[in-house]
Amino acid sequence: MSRLSDEEIEQQLADSDWAREGEAIVREWKLADFAAAIVFVNRVAELAERANHHPDILVHGWNKVRLELSTHSQGGLTGADFALAAEIDGLG
Amino acid sequence: MSRLSDEEIEQQLADSDWAREGEAIVREWKLADFAAAIVFVNRVAELAERANHHPDILVHGWNKVRLELSTHSQGGLTGADFALAAEIDGLG
Repeated sequence: MSRLSDEEIEQQLADSDWAREGEAIVREWKLADFAAAIVFVNRVAELAERANHHPDILVHGWNKVRLELSTHSQGGLTGADFALAAEIDGLG
Repeated sequence: MSRLSDEEIEQQLADSDWAREGEAIVREWKLADFAAAIVFVNRVAELAERANHHPDILVHGWNKVRLELSTHSQGGLTGADFALAAEIDGLG
């Protein structure tokens, strides 16, 4: 996958819950509690393994999970990031 | 649990793999791969739930896990942080 242009990234982010941060996209979830946050992390991890594309995952404040997606091998955002973002959004 | 003094914290950190960062202690692990990192996170989460003390957990660079412990209710480090750190160290 090749890097997306700024315009392509903007298009992908329209109507999205993800936000751009430099060469990555980020989204944060607030779960019921720490156990729910860990369950969510495991569901994300399963999708990530299947896609062979691995977000940075931050569990913080005992019930919040922040994900950051970027394609490090390309030094920026690619279709792989938005494909995985969409799958994660589908977790509900 | 009440906050530890700087001196008490230094004593606890002697011969430790944890480092102080402001009002928290941090340690980073490098695992074999992303799947191993997630397994480790789950083992930490189990100890955290049992202790009812929840570290911030960062999975990054696909195989690294960084933990940060602090007692937010006390605004600093307490014995609870070092007790959980010792349990996590015991994971091997």
